[in-house]
Amino acid sequence: MWKGSSVIESLRIDYPIIQAGMAGGVTTPELVAAVSNAGGLGNLGAGYLAPEAMVHRIREIKQLTSRTFGVNVFVPEYPQATKQEIEEANRWLAPYRTELNIQQEPRVEQDASLFEKQIEGLMAEQIPVVIFTFGVPPREVITDLKKEGIVIIGTATTVEEAIINEEHGVDMVVAQGSEAGGHRGTFNGDFDRAMIGTMSLVPQVADHVKIPVIAAGGIMDGRGVKAALALGAQGAQLGTAFVTCRESGAKTQHKDAILKSKETETVLTSAFSGKPARSIRNSFIEEMEKGQSHKLLAYPLQNMLTKEIRKEAASQNRPEYLSLWSGQSPRLSRAQSASSLVKAIVSYVEDESL
Amino acid sequence: MWKGSSVIESLRIDYPIIQAGMAGGVTTPELVAAVSNAGGLGNLGAGYLAPEAMVHRIREIKQLTSRTFGVNVFVPEYPQATKQEIEEANRWLAPYRTELNIQQEPRVEQDASLFEKQIEGLMAEQIPVVIFTFGVPPREVITDLKKEGIVIIGTATTVEEAIINEEHGVDMVVAQGSEAGGHRGTFNGDFDRAMIGTMSLVPQVADHVKIPVIAAGGIMDGRGVKAALALGAQGAQLGTAFVTCRESGAKTQHKDAILKSKETETVLTSAFSGKPARSIRNSFIEEMEKGQSHKLLAYPLQNMLTKEIRKEAASQNRPEYLSLWSGQSPRLSRAQSASSLVKAIVSYVEDESL
Repeated sequence: MWKGSSVIESLRIDYPIIQAGMAGGVTTPELVAAVSNAGGLGNLGAGYLAPEAMVHRIREIKQLTSRTFGVNVFVPEYPQATKQEIEEANRWLAPYRTELNIQQEPRVEQDASLFEKQIEGLMAEQIPVVIFTFGVPPREVITDLKKEGIVIIGTATTVEEAIINEEHGVDMVVAQGSEAGGHRGTFNGDFDRAMIGTMSLVPQVADHVKIPVIAAGGIMDGRGVKAALALGAQGAQLGTAFVTCRESGAKTQHKDAILKSKETETVLTSAFSGKPARSIRNSFIEEMEKGQSHKLLAYPLQNMLTKEIRKEAASQNRPEYLSLWSGQSPRLSRAQSASSLVKAIVSYVEDESL
Repeated sequence: MWKGSSVIESLRIDYPIIQAGMAGGVTTPELVAAVSNAGGLGNLGAGYLAPEAMVHRIREIKQLTSRTFGVNVFVPEYPQATKQEIEEANRWLAPYRTELNIQQEPRVEQDASLFEKQIEGLMAEQIPVVIFTFGVPPREVITDLKKEGIVIIGTATTVEEAIINEEHGVDMVVAQGSEAGGHRGTFNGDFDRAMIGTMSLVPQVADHVKIPVIAAGGIMDGRGVKAALALGAQGAQLGTAFVTCRESGAKTQHKDAILKSKETETVLTSAFSGKPARSIRNSFIEEMEKGQSHKLLAYPLQNMLTKEIRKEAASQNRPEYLSLWSGQSPRLSRAQSASSLVKAIVSYVEDESL
């Protein structure tokens, strides 16, 4: 099944099983290293990490594996919000702050040099693979990374977005189906229109780009990976399946919520970050979505406003206020080690009798 | 790949490739027979057919094939609407009637004996396979059909719905993912929550029922069928892929719309029938969805109100008012014969090198 996969060859990994570079502390050095050591591609989710923290984690991963691993970063966006809009968004969040005993409203500010410093850090650390989400990076970034021989992977939720990635010189593209947990990677057009199921998205993308396609969305086990390859993908990216792994840094409440949820319990919401993302439903989402979505700030401003709430909700064990990112296959989640997961996938896909 | 498929054995077909029993004239006797003659399972979509017309079509099919074919019927529902509600719904449709020069408002009436007579007709014609959509048929219907040795296939959009089908004695279940074109088969709970992508739905359903699972939603070619089998399905049902086939009775404007559409151009709408269904976007949908969805009648009442509009829109070549049912993979559609489609799928799936 794996033979001839250009993903395996380019990334020098054994199996084209890619652990999604989820932000927010899920991708501990232990998780990333476990996946890479098992022959897949582990990825550090550095989306929200300060450059120094990112480099620190990278060095920890290097202590734990000598295999290829990647880093996922977010292409930045800088929306504006007036003082009034921020005040209004904060008013909606005030009851949660009271409930969780949070005294201060957070400062809303963006450091435009963060992304640049992340890229510098990745080059200095000679990271072999960088995955971008939320858009295509500027051309000069692509040129710089390519000069260093770094493999660049982009993210697309439509055929058009995959073509844009290819045209910009991106080496491979993750085709993220609507089943996927966490943030939508949509960057060109309407979020609703870009909710294409993995079964539909992957072959249509594969027909329209020459670069290798990596399927994502709803894939949790050997069945999903085998299906992804059948659809024309050269590899598969799994997020939720790794969240519940032992090595994952996801909060206990987050892991528990996935392990006990049904496929009908997730929902797309912008309440946490200002950008649509798939989470298990809870009171925070339901209350925030009650007709006032226009009062949310744009991503990443809304994310800044809710950060402390989510942090306190975790430490005070209030999962009803947490972002519980999950794809549409939570019934397939298991509490296991990352290497067990990778091994189980490999033996299913390699079993010719199935 | 096909060996040991209980779907093949029970249905006495060569390949577990099932042409969806789409209502509304798509499933001509020629289409149904062509699919069955090619070794798949053709299906007459009898949802909206009067019992006599259904029997007439069945006899035509029997002239064209000696292979197994099935019939798809709708489990009926009988919503109430007040005179006022009907008037209000008609007010929204009045501009279209004027535009298309339709003089009369249709009568809104349901014949509760229709379903019963359909079932009698199916038994009298000794149809070997009956597929139900929009719910599980009453227990006495299941008992009667089973006595005749008829294989009963149900439709589910969630794990729970698949379990309900199994518990009622249904023999196989179609797991309809969110990519699917036409009407959602959801019958137990919220339509939004039951929008589960095929990649997620199929393995979760397969883990929770013992009866064979047939995957549906976004499947258009050999890649999709192979993926469906990898996910744990014993067969695959294709709808949109057969709509554009030469033998299909779909209106020319419908075929053309699918053939030229992109994956981002479909939308779920209740505007035509009162029940959510996936169609290619057009002016009728956009205008009807502008905040007045509460003024639509429930299915099938809304369907009765729009029937003449759709018919006239077709004959006056106004595709902007037609229901253009399509799944999320229109880029994979081809104008070809049904037997070419089945053959291409079979050779892809049987090619061990892929």
